[in-house]
Amino acid sequence: MKQSQYFSRTSKTAPKDDVSVNARLLEQAGFVHKEMAGVYSYLPLGWRVLQKIENIIREEMNAIGGQEILMPAMQPKENWQATGRWDSLDVLFKIKSQHDNEYALGPTHEEIVTPLGVGRISSYRDLPLAVYQIQTKFRDEARAKSGLMRGREFRMKDLYSFHTTEEDLARYYKVVAESYTKIFNRLGIPALYVEADGGTFAKYSHEFQVETPNGEDVVYVCNKCQLAVNKEIFSDEKTCTDCGEKDYRETKASEVGNIFELKTKFSESFKLTYTDEDGSQKPVLMGCYGIGPSRIMGVIVEEHHDEAGIIWPESVSPFAVHLIALGGKDAEVSEQAEKLYSNLLAAGVEVLYDDRTEASAGQKFADSDLIGIPNRVIISSKTIAENSVELKNRASGDTSLVPLNQIMEKFSNA
Amino acid sequence: MKQSQYFSRTSKTAPKDDVSVNARLLEQAGFVHKEMAGVYSYLPLGWRVLQKIENIIREEMNAIGGQEILMPAMQPKENWQATGRWDSLDVLFKIKSQHDNEYALGPTHEEIVTPLGVGRISSYRDLPLAVYQIQTKFRDEARAKSGLMRGREFRMKDLYSFHTTEEDLARYYKVVAESYTKIFNRLGIPALYVEADGGTFAKYSHEFQVETPNGEDVVYVCNKCQLAVNKEIFSDEKTCTDCGEKDYRETKASEVGNIFELKTKFSESFKLTYTDEDGSQKPVLMGCYGIGPSRIMGVIVEEHHDEAGIIWPESVSPFAVHLIALGGKDAEVSEQAEKLYSNLLAAGVEVLYDDRTEASAGQKFADSDLIGIPNRVIISSKTIAENSVELKNRASGDTSLVPLNQIMEKFSNA
Repeated sequence: MKQSQYFSRTSKTAPKDDVSVNARLLEQAGFVHKEMAGVYSYLPLGWRVLQKIENIIREEMNAIGGQEILMPAMQPKENWQATGRWDSLDVLFKIKSQHDNEYALGPTHEEIVTPLGVGRISSYRDLPLAVYQIQTKFRDEARAKSGLMRGREFRMKDLYSFHTTEEDLARYYKVVAESYTKIFNRLGIPALYVEADGGTFAKYSHEFQVETPNGEDVVYVCNKCQLAVNKEIFSDEKTCTDCGEKDYRETKASEVGNIFELKTKFSESFKLTYTDEDGSQKPVLMGCYGIGPSRIMGVIVEEHHDEAGIIWPESVSPFAVHLIALGGKDAEVSEQAEKLYSNLLAAGVEVLYDDRTEASAGQKFADSDLIGIPNRVIISSKTIAENSVELKNRASGDTSLVPLNQIMEKFSNA
Repeated sequence: MKQSQYFSRTSKTAPKDDVSVNARLLEQAGFVHKEMAGVYSYLPLGWRVLQKIENIIREEMNAIGGQEILMPAMQPKENWQATGRWDSLDVLFKIKSQHDNEYALGPTHEEIVTPLGVGRISSYRDLPLAVYQIQTKFRDEARAKSGLMRGREFRMKDLYSFHTTEEDLARYYKVVAESYTKIFNRLGIPALYVEADGGTFAKYSHEFQVETPNGEDVVYVCNKCQLAVNKEIFSDEKTCTDCGEKDYRETKASEVGNIFELKTKFSESFKLTYTDEDGSQKPVLMGCYGIGPSRIMGVIVEEHHDEAGIIWPESVSPFAVHLIALGGKDAEVSEQAEKLYSNLLAAGVEVLYDDRTEASAGQKFADSDLIGIPNRVIISSKTIAENSVELKNRASGDTSLVPLNQIMEKFSNA
């Protein structure tokens, strides 16, 4: 993509009304635009990152047998009344048609996925089963804040699993937990596996928390057995709930995923049963597992930045290469840069090409630092004189001269 | 995908409350589930089709320089007040936060995309520009009907273009019209290019209409000059508005796309201006261009079915091959079928594999007819005796025996 034509523009001034690091950098670098508190537009740069995050999650969900579906945002009031959450869930947005019904605007989809199972799950032979979606969700948060971290409208991957026995649910719960660990590693944000309160369904649920200075949660990690627990269930005696050790660390963290055993709570509300081998009818056991891709975009930025801007992990960077032509009014520079740009595109490399002729070198470098693409390739009359380009790593700052005839090899197998 | 484990189930009984062909077939074949009037869940089969439709549209939008973004469903009330549509647009869903604001739930995105341009478009050098999104939209329809054809919640691709002059807008309008023609051809639903009323902005807008017996619109096509116009603008004298000919046909059709010249209507509301070469400030000219992927899924089914079920065009079929093992309790049959299934998957062929051991041949064929995958491969003890499989084309009904060692070649280059 040529930067001169790109619908994205960096800004020197920080947004006034949001002080979180992720919101500031993502807005200044032109990834997102804040429409109102907790509601963002994703500009081309931001949409590319969001798609990469979602595709990594999608690959891993498919790898553990998840079947992708799409459930609606607008949900029947009766479904929410059936579980009692129409009145009890305080963040539920309610919407009224002028013509007839009142709806819920989905903050989660248990009220839809469970009745979807009725008629499609009937025998023990149909189980286990797992379906997921990547969908926009809505929550009427009292105070939407922290940039992409807590939105009123946000992206969510939610997986739901269905089982015959508690053992099978527990088995799959572990499969998902391992998958989540892999996902967060791939996304460049290794996460703690944290015990949390299981509510009325189970003894524990689990959160995945990324340790970060601006985290909104507090997590306790036992230095002896490495068990991590959240504030809710950390013992009053200030000892590890597992090994009893008093040697722990208290760390700030941001939640990036959570998993719950729902057991029969929802299947009972919607009479989702199966016929077992012995012919008896039994309620289906369920688990639910969430990851928020837009929230993760915020967490990645919180974890990967320096004073000059964002430093994207390669796996989610909007482009693999930031090609920068310096002194672009110099015909030879722009000719060489155009040629390299075409060659890289032809080799399937994702390139953002700063072809702007009006911007100074300083401005281009500042923008490039802000945007944070991991590999930078600079062409100038100086590099051309040496038949080379300059290759710079955004994270390490390492710089090297690479002969023009070798630069393609660096990226075409990426 | 193995059918025995698939979250999709055919039904012998037609849905009671919806008589449109697309709703009946898509529900009976297990592509969608109706949650309420005008609101559907997309099951794995339906989601695959919807993704294919959206990806074809995405490819063509990228090919004409569209930059993909994602704008929110929840939109500030002030933006809608700025254009006067908060009160005038009767299908607008309004939603109230318990905490503060009232929002619009986006039926379209001019009220978001235009202010997004402010600060990102400032000079004539920034133009022309085109951005698009594929997003869920909401309309408070008085009577949601016709299955996927008129929803309260539906998928929409909306492209917006920005220009310096009317000439450049007209040029790009034609580029989009040609792209749309290509898209509908690729989707297997060639569409008429129909003149419609341009409202207050322009003399004409254009609709893309697919001739279909159950179409909700009426279109007039001049048999002499082939000009097509919609009911709104067909002349009272019953003559072609272009050549004056009285020889026309009246045909039922379904709208699958529309394009409008917005000109400066929205840029004036939001003060979206650019600095021209001579230093003067001018309002940006805009066009908008819509296609509804979920609606298109309905139209494709209306166009491509027979009494037994759906017949998907290859470009949007949920799978390329429906592999059916008959007499699956026969160890040799299931062994050969499993082997072929693995080989096809390894070659990157999308296969739905009917591995069910309990279903009869008749049931499997009826389900396969209903689901409508274009190529069917049947393995039975009979075909194995001839070291072959039976290949059947869903559309033509043509059947042939293909040697087992040649079947891979048929599909692995598909």
